[in-house]
Amino acid sequence: MELPSKILEQAVEQLGTLPGVGKRTALRYALHLLRQDELEVRDMCDALLRLKTDLHRCRCCHNVSDTEVCPLCSSDKRQRGLVCVVENVQDVMALENTQQYRGLYHVLGGVISPIDGVGVNDIEIASLLRRVEQGNPCPVEEVILALPTTMEGDTTGFYISRQLRPLGVKITTLARGVAIGDNLEFADEVTLGRSIVGRIPFEE
Amino acid sequence: MELPSKILEQAVEQLGTLPGVGKRTALRYALHLLRQDELEVRDMCDALLRLKTDLHRCRCCHNVSDTEVCPLCSSDKRQRGLVCVVENVQDVMALENTQQYRGLYHVLGGVISPIDGVGVNDIEIASLLRRVEQGNPCPVEEVILALPTTMEGDTTGFYISRQLRPLGVKITTLARGVAIGDNLEFADEVTLGRSIVGRIPFEE
Repeated sequence: MELPSKILEQAVEQLGTLPGVGKRTALRYALHLLRQDELEVRDMCDALLRLKTDLHRCRCCHNVSDTEVCPLCSSDKRQRGLVCVVENVQDVMALENTQQYRGLYHVLGGVISPIDGVGVNDIEIASLLRRVEQGNPCPVEEVILALPTTMEGDTTGFYISRQLRPLGVKITTLARGVAIGDNLEFADEVTLGRSIVGRIPFEE
Repeated sequence: MELPSKILEQAVEQLGTLPGVGKRTALRYALHLLRQDELEVRDMCDALLRLKTDLHRCRCCHNVSDTEVCPLCSSDKRQRGLVCVVENVQDVMALENTQQYRGLYHVLGGVISPIDGVGVNDIEIASLLRRVEQGNPCPVEEVILALPTTMEGDTTGFYISRQLRPLGVKITTLARGVAIGDNLEFADEVTLGRSIVGRIPFEE
């Protein structure tokens, strides 16, 4: 598909760098923007640039935040001795949506992945260790490892638990098992195997 | 889904105005941009803004163009007596992709649609009439109406043909019929009905 203009082509190319956006979708976005007022396009660009210029990472948990310390970390309604370690910002949102967790978070910003060139020092592990060690801003009683159940997630969890062990903090991880609403026949065998080995008391 | 930051929320809101983009997809785009360098986000925004500031509409056919007159209109390899009237830029690209048409275009920038508040004067009909009347930049022998086969497209085609009739120019439209590769049983009855009434000589 040849485009009638270099300027349009460049816009399509740039929009095509968004995740999951192919050339056809990028063209649809570009032609949509073309129909908008200049002011509207400018507003969108301003909002996108502010992501890089104005958005903070919370000094304490490294979640995205408008302030230096995020609302969760500065709230006195959370259990401040609980720290849930997650890979990224979306995971915080997913856990917050459950409304089941009232502790704090620590956002690693990735997991250890040698193939992608992500090492121990590329993610927020050192700051987690400091946070537990110094009990700053508050003493940590329990670290919950809520990392992806992939090889990279497991590696990261293993590394962190090895580093935390000497500090005498309680380390837990998310319960594994059959998903609520799942039929047994469709559960994968590793999950099903773990859930029978790690069976729990029946609650009436 | 509550977002941890107003700045992130605004970016998600803006990205959500793109066609077919919901909140979840917009968030995915925003978090992707968050991971990019500031320079890359700036490059994208520059490319998008240039759509509004630097992109021209061809003075002659109203297609998007980097120059005041587009390459198609200024080419001496096209049949300059043929003008194909289309709704939008995508239609030009679709017809160019067929490599079957060597004439010029006229991009209306929409079709008459009272419900959407698009009237005769909101699209490039007057400039088409002038183009045919004045034979400028070249005499027009045939106008091909390649408009969508919707009520709005039909209305627009009907209006244009009524205006063109007195000028004595030949007016044609795209052939209607069963699509190549279609089974008869799946063709809609209006199309199938038209294609039997308007049957054409069999070519061996």
